[in-house]
Amino acid sequence: MAARHEEIADELRRAIDREEYAVGSLLPPETDLAAHYGVSRGTVRQAVAALTAEGLIGSRQGARRVVLASRRSQSFTELRSFAQWARAMGREATGDVVAQEYRPATKEDAGRLHLRAGTPVLHVLRLRGLDGEPVLLERTVYADWISPAVEAIEPDCPSVTQRLYDDTGLVFAHGEHLIDAVAAGAQDAELLGVRRTSPLLRVRRITTTHEGRPVEWSDDRYRPDAVSFSVHNSIGNNALARTTSHRPIDQRTGGD
Amino acid sequence: MAARHEEIADELRRAIDREEYAVGSLLPPETDLAAHYGVSRGTVRQAVAALTAEGLIGSRQGARRVVLASRRSQSFTELRSFAQWARAMGREATGDVVAQEYRPATKEDAGRLHLRAGTPVLHVLRLRGLDGEPVLLERTVYADWISPAVEAIEPDCPSVTQRLYDDTGLVFAHGEHLIDAVAAGAQDAELLGVRRTSPLLRVRRITTTHEGRPVEWSDDRYRPDAVSFSVHNSIGNNALARTTSHRPIDQRTGGD
Repeated sequence: MAARHEEIADELRRAIDREEYAVGSLLPPETDLAAHYGVSRGTVRQAVAALTAEGLIGSRQGARRVVLASRRSQSFTELRSFAQWARAMGREATGDVVAQEYRPATKEDAGRLHLRAGTPVLHVLRLRGLDGEPVLLERTVYADWISPAVEAIEPDCPSVTQRLYDDTGLVFAHGEHLIDAVAAGAQDAELLGVRRTSPLLRVRRITTTHEGRPVEWSDDRYRPDAVSFSVHNSIGNNALARTTSHRPIDQRTGGD
Repeated sequence: MAARHEEIADELRRAIDREEYAVGSLLPPETDLAAHYGVSRGTVRQAVAALTAEGLIGSRQGARRVVLASRRSQSFTELRSFAQWARAMGREATGDVVAQEYRPATKEDAGRLHLRAGTPVLHVLRLRGLDGEPVLLERTVYADWISPAVEAIEPDCPSVTQRLYDDTGLVFAHGEHLIDAVAAGAQDAELLGVRRTSPLLRVRRITTTHEGRPVEWSDDRYRPDAVSFSVHNSIGNNALARTTSHRPIDQRTGGD
């Protein structure tokens, strides 16, 4: 049987997922939570410590703590693999290769992967799941020099990133992401279990090594009911510098 | 008449918008661009310098430069207003208030804006345009202490952020954003000029002052054919630290 503080941690996680406590808002004070759940403040503190360790909630602001993320929101602060994000949130990531084949690099592949057009590159269509539910469809093209190592991986490997590190020492270090929304096509709908034309969150990304060498580029489509992205940002250093030089016209930032 | 380097800068901007040169890929070398446009390398360099100043392309990698953003991609590296982003990209931002009214803060408003439930807060529905085209519908709730200043702004003000700074000295310093996709509702479709149920890129955000005091929270819906978001990130400091401590199991990052 789960300890009471574990049960409360789980209730808090679900309340954050449901947006009862939305990202950016404050959790009620410990005393209020203790009264609400009918437990001691010490028990609440143990539950809160677990969520803090998971990155769901942040440091204190007075007597309260800010909600930083939900279990469905993937933070872009650091480059993390899907499997790594899932594990940090206490969820299980799965992967299944639906199809893979070598094709000659198009001009577009060549520009993105820094190869010559015509070089054979591995295309992989992979369905990713979270706790058994399909949530993400990846269409990935791998650079020629890593393609054989990818081809050798079993189709249901839950973390290709981890496997490539174990097998070849490759580290994915930097990512460029372009985020928009698209209507689900027939293949998206069938594999993700949604209606055709329903909205999907799309991320097109290029991932590189420490040295900036492109490893892969991918068109990833997420079910938005299952995964969203969180981004924290601040006014730029330049803008802050300008604030001190008294040029109001340049200080525009924020959400107008 | 535009100078030749200005014409070429504009052709490059459009090629990046069309994803002929995609975000994350390399531009052809200057010599190839010069041959392609039938001009000198000096002329190409002037065009490239303009795009570098706009943040569309980055520093040299050997003889080539990487494409960092297109005119439709809004970077999340810094907190920037819609008007500020548009101006940096050489485009004109417009705004029109469709409706505004005071309502008592709900429990949700109160949690997000750090107010008591029931406090009157200003709700504004605002349509934002880019070069005359509607691209963004904002549903914003302002904290009670800034609501009167927002209410006093004329309905077609192109930058509320700038106006609030000019009128009150308020600086939007930090933003928490939650990004997903939604199907356009009837009001979204009518105002944005898209079909009902077509995919929209949604950003729910809370913007705060330097001190972390929430100013506004907003549900923003973008036409994804007009605006996307770009995010650059890297393997975390923690992960890098772990790399040096030889714990392969913890080194997973990237796009698996």
